[in-house]
Amino acid sequence: MTRAQIKYIRSLSLKKFRRETGHFVVEGHKMVEELLDSDFVVEEIYTDQPFSSPRSGMSVVPAKAAELQEVSGMATSPGIMAICRQKTWNFIEPQQLSGMTLLLDSIVDPGNLGTIIRSADWFGIDQVICSIDTVEVYNPKVVQSTMGSVFRIPVVYMDLTTTIGQLKAAGIPVMGADASGTDYRKVQRNSKCGLVIGSESHGISAAVKSQLNQLIGIPGSGNAESLNAAIAAAILCAYFAN
Amino acid sequence: MTRAQIKYIRSLSLKKFRRETGHFVVEGHKMVEELLDSDFVVEEIYTDQPFSSPRSGMSVVPAKAAELQEVSGMATSPGIMAICRQKTWNFIEPQQLSGMTLLLDSIVDPGNLGTIIRSADWFGIDQVICSIDTVEVYNPKVVQSTMGSVFRIPVVYMDLTTTIGQLKAAGIPVMGADASGTDYRKVQRNSKCGLVIGSESHGISAAVKSQLNQLIGIPGSGNAESLNAAIAAAILCAYFAN
Repeated sequence: MTRAQIKYIRSLSLKKFRRETGHFVVEGHKMVEELLDSDFVVEEIYTDQPFSSPRSGMSVVPAKAAELQEVSGMATSPGIMAICRQKTWNFIEPQQLSGMTLLLDSIVDPGNLGTIIRSADWFGIDQVICSIDTVEVYNPKVVQSTMGSVFRIPVVYMDLTTTIGQLKAAGIPVMGADASGTDYRKVQRNSKCGLVIGSESHGISAAVKSQLNQLIGIPGSGNAESLNAAIAAAILCAYFAN
Repeated sequence: MTRAQIKYIRSLSLKKFRRETGHFVVEGHKMVEELLDSDFVVEEIYTDQPFSSPRSGMSVVPAKAAELQEVSGMATSPGIMAICRQKTWNFIEPQQLSGMTLLLDSIVDPGNLGTIIRSADWFGIDQVICSIDTVEVYNPKVVQSTMGSVFRIPVVYMDLTTTIGQLKAAGIPVMGADASGTDYRKVQRNSKCGLVIGSESHGISAAVKSQLNQLIGIPGSGNAESLNAAIAAAILCAYFAN
């Protein structure tokens, strides 16, 4: 690897440079495999192992283990890394939806966003809509914790109040997860619906909350004050989208 | 703070020193509040803010913000930190159980263990049994991601095959989460049960699997290969312990 390549890849750990270049980093064999199965554009693959790309004409750069370690965002480099192009997904219009739309109101923890995208992919959610201030989906920690689902699930950043308005106008009910809400197991399931998950520290914002058809809660008989946001999202997806 | 105090606290980021001293670190106002509501023994509290301890005779050490940042395990120190004594919980014997025992087979990610303990506390799980090779509960990332539930939920490290044998001998069925298992929504709920969650990369080990009464799975209609371990644990706790 050249010094310029090393410097470039390291710069992609910063949001500023990811935004300027439109690139992001993917690490590990499984992740790169899932990337190559997707329609994401791959710029280069760096690896210290024999690797034959299934895509013709793709640039595979042989690298030393120490160089990969130097550019890796992980504690131990898995020995393979891809630089690829960010994809801008389109909002799936209400008329085209077949199931659930997940809406995230200011999720800030990268692991939570990644895990939510992975669960969304497991349960066959149509799309994930993120408020503008939700953590960036191409943050390396988000990408890695999706375990490849980031290449499959549409993730769109847009104003939530606008989106909720569109869903409701098309007759799709939008619920929100909130501790004060109705026990989710008593709520009518619809084949199409929207579900809002609020931020880790403040829950759903007042402006969004006022638009919702219903608040739903996950009752617990223990003593914790709340559930983790990704956990709440998954329990509700398991019930409403399954 | 003295240099010795700073050095001591920093050493507690390593498992070796946590084991030698029997101490661990708790950070943040909410966490320290939950700690003081528990029966965990507090050695010292360091803070740069006015703080009156609800426990008489407890040592509260005034510290500078820069010192707290130097010893903090978080990106930004929340301005308060406690050093406390590890508690060794006792295994709750099968006869004393009232609900679910969660058994973790080699969970290695600290965030996953912490989140599982938090969910266990939400759903009123009796105890969490960890295989000997599961990540240490007093790892700072585990502690912080429990959001205080680490002070309430018994977490015991012991051989899982022994534990499962004891539960079964007392007539308590033990299930395991596995993608090949029966759809969990078709499984009989018992007021008392055991549930094994396997490791992030290898699932439940063969020795443990052979002991189980039943394997249960969480079906999904999407394309992800698996669910995160903490997510699977929570979905199953929501169903079986609620």
